[in-house]
Amino acid sequence: MSEDFNVAGFLAERLEWVAARRPLIHHITNFVVMNETANLTLCLGASPVMAHATAEVEEMASQAGALVLNMGTPYPELEEAMCAAGRAANRAGVPVVLDPVGAGATSYRTRVAHRLLEEVRFAAVRGNAAEVACLAGEAAEIRGVDSVSFSGDPAGMASGLASSLGCVVAVTGAVDVVSDGVRLARVSNGHELLGGVTGTGCMATTAVAVMLASGEPYLEAAAAALGLFGLAGERAADVSGGRPGSFHVELYNQTHALAAGHAPLEGLRVKIEDGGNA
Amino acid sequence: MSEDFNVAGFLAERLEWVAARRPLIHHITNFVVMNETANLTLCLGASPVMAHATAEVEEMASQAGALVLNMGTPYPELEEAMCAAGRAANRAGVPVVLDPVGAGATSYRTRVAHRLLEEVRFAAVRGNAAEVACLAGEAAEIRGVDSVSFSGDPAGMASGLASSLGCVVAVTGAVDVVSDGVRLARVSNGHELLGGVTGTGCMATTAVAVMLASGEPYLEAAAAALGLFGLAGERAADVSGGRPGSFHVELYNQTHALAAGHAPLEGLRVKIEDGGNA
Amino acid sequence: MSEDFNVAGFLAERLEWVAARRPLIHHITNFVVMNETANLTLCLGASPVMAHATAEVEEMASQAGALVLNMGTPYPELEEAMCAAGRAANRAGVPVVLDPVGAGATSYRTRVAHRLLEEVRFAAVRGNAAEVACLAGEAAEIRGVDSVSFSGDPAGMASGLASSLGCVVAVTGAVDVVSDGVRLARVSNGHELLGGVTGTGCMATTAVAVMLASGEPYLEAAAAALGLFGLAGERAADVSGGRPGSFHVELYNQTHALAAGHAPLEGLRVKIEDGGNA
Repeated sequence: MSEDFNVAGFLAERLEWVAARRPLIHHITNFVVMNETANLTLCLGASPVMAHATAEVEEMASQAGALVLNMGTPYPELEEAMCAAGRAANRAGVPVVLDPVGAGATSYRTRVAHRLLEEVRFAAVRGNAAEVACLAGEAAEIRGVDSVSFSGDPAGMASGLASSLGCVVAVTGAVDVVSDGVRLARVSNGHELLGGVTGTGCMATTAVAVMLASGEPYLEAAAAALGLFGLAGERAADVSGGRPGSFHVELYNQTHALAAGHAPLEGLRVKIEDGGNA
Repeated sequence: MSEDFNVAGFLAERLEWVAARRPLIHHITNFVVMNETANLTLCLGASPVMAHATAEVEEMASQAGALVLNMGTPYPELEEAMCAAGRAANRAGVPVVLDPVGAGATSYRTRVAHRLLEEVRFAAVRGNAAEVACLAGEAAEIRGVDSVSFSGDPAGMASGLASSLGCVVAVTGAVDVVSDGVRLARVSNGHELLGGVTGTGCMATTAVAVMLASGEPYLEAAAAALGLFGLAGERAADVSGGRPGSFHVELYNQTHALAAGHAPLEGLRVKIEDGGNA
Repeated sequence: MSEDFNVAGFLAERLEWVAARRPLIHHITNFVVMNETANLTLCLGASPVMAHATAEVEEMASQAGALVLNMGTPYPELEEAMCAAGRAANRAGVPVVLDPVGAGATSYRTRVAHRLLEEVRFAAVRGNAAEVACLAGEAAEIRGVDSVSFSGDPAGMASGLASSLGCVVAVTGAVDVVSDGVRLARVSNGHELLGGVTGTGCMATTAVAVMLASGEPYLEAAAAALGLFGLAGERAADVSGGRPGSFHVELYNQTHALAAGHAPLEGLRVKIEDGGNA
């Protein structure tokens, strides 16, 4: 059974809230996409800050509207900073979003991912099928940061992990599935060119964090964020004619146009069902 | 009383000097804007180098035309490297420019900023109102790296801090003010889209460093650099129609066009008064 | 004597191989160009991963199709990670490419470069004349990461170093020379605008790594990669009208168009002679 989720109306309200308050989105993220995710945060109307010194992450995270922990280029000091920031955000009631980049690709990344799940209470997790499978203990193949094969059921996996973690889990791919353990959203926006530019998964996570900063319910917020970013990708693909450099530039233009109300929120394909395991 | 500062003539001479000598601009900077500030340095005709290992920063800084210390993503090793590089630059007579990104946002950043002011003799400091207020001991509110509120007088603050540090202080905002403790420059170039792309403050600092590499007087050099970068922002905004991705690309195009003499240095709004506190 | 090397045919086959297998290109690289080299890898049809924690680099490098060690922002932990990854790649038979960014600019960089040459067996080295001269023990002047003067013979230097290291050595400049110690390739593709955007040397190294992932002979693979990237630069310059921001964007578009078969592999200027020292 599908609820009638008015995703455009939901997004319009949330984006207005974000524009009015400019929530701080604290990222502890990989060194590949720092600039890109900061710019995406700005396109969505929020205020990015990148800070990863253990000496300051607790103070910074406590002031934030949301915290992103992205383990794309992990190393021991960053791992400590992510744990400390995550716990501080938990104490302050700041929602924390995990992007388990490359979990499963090396045993170190897998350990970092599992440690984060143990020490931090997440509001949402977003990854590709192989990364989420690594968290859920399911079989999958990952090479570097690319999901190579996963033969399971993404919706069931998202739902099971969401239940056990008590948070929203998003598995992104051709169709994104998002579960809070009870309900399931399917987002069929997006474009294959998103796979031709590095960091678009990290940007999707940033979009989720910005929407979570505007409050619960997180299932709707996460699904709407993925719909918005996917729609921006579709429009960027239209304008850029399949050229990845131009597509990258247009991704900011189109995200900003949608978020600022310069382009209509039309074409969102986000559906919510009750019961992800059903 | 306003001096008749021919900013276009000043810039034309300085840019020719830079093009002929390609001064090395050594950056120890945050991980968000390394690529962006390196590219801006190239657009201005200078040669960027990013180096932050304690083992090499003194040797690198000593060869430079100017050194940028930008504390946007500080951590202990980087803090040590910035201090060591700054002292080496001081010994070698290389001008050092401070960008106190996020000073005041966490107590760690505030400590780093004050330590740098104690250990290094700066030629110029550039920050937003809240960052400079943190250095000057004035009240302000900062969230992440955004100045949220400052109710004081930027010109008086710049002048006071310039006097106490013995250097040029630039407070950038809708109108930039630059003081050497005696004279004050006001730069009213710029565009609000500069706030929609991350790292444009850091790029403005890089522009100041490139101009300082061409020699004294630093008040004129810093003000002219901010005028040039602001003018590039205005032209980029014109061309890109308010789209932040395209604006980002155009910012390099327009800076390069102005610096290389492909576009006229027209529309600079830089005025110098004697006596910033008067 | 010049062999009849059908570079377009060679590239077409290799690019098809890469597109079919999407080899993982593991980079341990500088923090300035991580995003740029990841995107170039994607444009060429391969899969980038950036990983530099000592705890994971051996495992990651062993799975890779090629490993890039780029010392653009070296520091002790990164130096250790590069050595460990390089040795692991050697054990696993994964080709390793060195980009000795700034070798000779500081004594620390020179030490790192020489240590890497001692501990790791490279399949290819790519640098500018001054960087390669530093490795070869020849006289040259470097400032930051720019080759300022080298009065020797690049072809002789490449050939001599290739012989002593037992690998392919590429010296890039107005004309690139590539030697395997016996034969010499000259690549006269490229455009001066490549010097106006940071990281284009690093991108050229990434292109070499992608081609080496497709197998031997490495002389042809490295020369073809440099020809392809130089040709993309020429086309990007045509389209972007000398504007560096637009040129940067077009560099991805044109590389992708050539690699994906959307644009013809015409205009490659790659010649191979037997006997680089002759």
